[in-house]
Amino acid sequence: MTTALPSSVSIREVGPRDGLQSENPIAVADKVRLINALSRTGLSRVEAVAFVHPRAIPQMANADEVWEAVDRNPDVRYSALVPNLKGADRALKAGFTELEVVVSASDTHNRKNINRSTDESLDALGELIATVHDGGATAEVIVATSFGCPYEGDIAASRVAWVVDRAVAAGADRVAFGDTTGMGTPRRVRELLEAVRASQPDIPILLHFHNTRGTALANVLTALEYGVTEFDASVGGLGGCPYAPGASGNLATEELVHMLHDMGIDTGVDLDALLEVAVMAEGLVGRELPSGVLRAGPRTRLTPL
Amino acid sequence: MTTALPSSVSIREVGPRDGLQSENPIAVADKVRLINALSRTGLSRVEAVAFVHPRAIPQMANADEVWEAVDRNPDVRYSALVPNLKGADRALKAGFTELEVVVSASDTHNRKNINRSTDESLDALGELIATVHDGGATAEVIVATSFGCPYEGDIAASRVAWVVDRAVAAGADRVAFGDTTGMGTPRRVRELLEAVRASQPDIPILLHFHNTRGTALANVLTALEYGVTEFDASVGGLGGCPYAPGASGNLATEELVHMLHDMGIDTGVDLDALLEVAVMAEGLVGRELPSGVLRAGPRTRLTPL
Repeated sequence: MTTALPSSVSIREVGPRDGLQSENPIAVADKVRLINALSRTGLSRVEAVAFVHPRAIPQMANADEVWEAVDRNPDVRYSALVPNLKGADRALKAGFTELEVVVSASDTHNRKNINRSTDESLDALGELIATVHDGGATAEVIVATSFGCPYEGDIAASRVAWVVDRAVAAGADRVAFGDTTGMGTPRRVRELLEAVRASQPDIPILLHFHNTRGTALANVLTALEYGVTEFDASVGGLGGCPYAPGASGNLATEELVHMLHDMGIDTGVDLDALLEVAVMAEGLVGRELPSGVLRAGPRTRLTPL
Repeated sequence: MTTALPSSVSIREVGPRDGLQSENPIAVADKVRLINALSRTGLSRVEAVAFVHPRAIPQMANADEVWEAVDRNPDVRYSALVPNLKGADRALKAGFTELEVVVSASDTHNRKNINRSTDESLDALGELIATVHDGGATAEVIVATSFGCPYEGDIAASRVAWVVDRAVAAGADRVAFGDTTGMGTPRRVRELLEAVRASQPDIPILLHFHNTRGTALANVLTALEYGVTEFDASVGGLGGCPYAPGASGNLATEELVHMLHDMGIDTGVDLDALLEVAVMAEGLVGRELPSGVLRAGPRTRLTPL
């Protein structure tokens, strides 16, 4: 193969938000400890909190308090997820300069989540993003169920591209594609990237994979071959899939870092430091996390004779 | 990407041998049930037994008895692993026409396993393979630790290519590369295939990956891009890594089939039938197996609204 892969990749650590959102709630001080520890591993980005209603997602309560207490590392870009205008206002007031908003490519999934069609969510994006921009922040649109929907099945890549076109028209600075229930495969990654790039050659793209069916790193490899250099991952694989006990959820950050480093692709992350945080994360949520590199150690860790 | 991937892949199911070898011993009748069930899923090849001394590997005892009782499916190619001339004699007498012999690319690993250097094992190959051929069977040489050794670390691709050259000179009909402790990454797969193909453009190649560090399907994808069409996999992921509790061992057959089918690559396997055998395998070994597709179901299995 002569495909030239990128020489470096930017990882956004989503354990504190996307990960913890699917675990049993933990204390504010523990969330702060986790974010602080992650911020010292060389990770360039951390998704820190979500400004959602605590009744909707109790795990994300006290976002203001968490963020206030974090030792903010000037070398790390922090982001917050917001579901609506009210959340955006709170995030801006708290001082975040990178906000994320989710729209599902699957109409059924979007309705199940927020009782709105995808089209209605897209209609509301313009005002939301304008508010974010007015507040001096950037807006990333995360397209959920981009590689398949658990209710509808396959989602056509042309549908995802249509959502992206609408998001860009509404002012999105970046787009992310979420493999919400781990339905992504190399073929789906290829089809999506080709469809989106055909109409939006320049919008920054980030990919978010789950390892539910073992394909996360194969999907990453495919995306690298298309020049994608931004990926989400979750320390230890935090964020189990609540309705499929035992199934792994988010791609573990250390599995991503481990493969990329062996391929000579820089991430800036100190893998040993990250593994220590993964051990801490297991303690915080009180369960064994699914990360294989955490269990077995990196391939460079030799067995004594 | 314009890389043309193969249109079909031949999977060798190794659960009954390589898988069970790392599980608690099960009864002869259960081994037979497992092999028979696998033989009805459309799998083209099954590694059925090993003719090793029961004191060395109690899990593999009664190979003759197992094989005698199996309902042999004429559409399935069965193979047996043999450690030496005595094992080869037993396998030939039992009627096997495809035998496998293991040599480790790592000298330290080879010595730990059989108290011989790699060179000494290679020296003995000629006589062993001649015996196999005289008995009307083919001989595959499996090169263990091809992508790294837990004691020595990286194994140079040139070293693996040297082992292959010696094996081919000794009469090997095929070679397989074992990722014995899951140290393979796309980079190691690329380096190995380029080195081996440079000196042996025609020898049939099979790859055997472990998913210990999450890279198995990324490794498969890389190998497909190099035109490799033969892979080992183990139903349910049978065959935990005994010295790394919780770590997954063999790539689960259903994860491999699931990804390949979605990519339009034929395997001949009925995935639903295979998943039923994975459930049976969990019952036989009495533990939850690590296969993600077994836990979450295939991506085509929808959640009712």
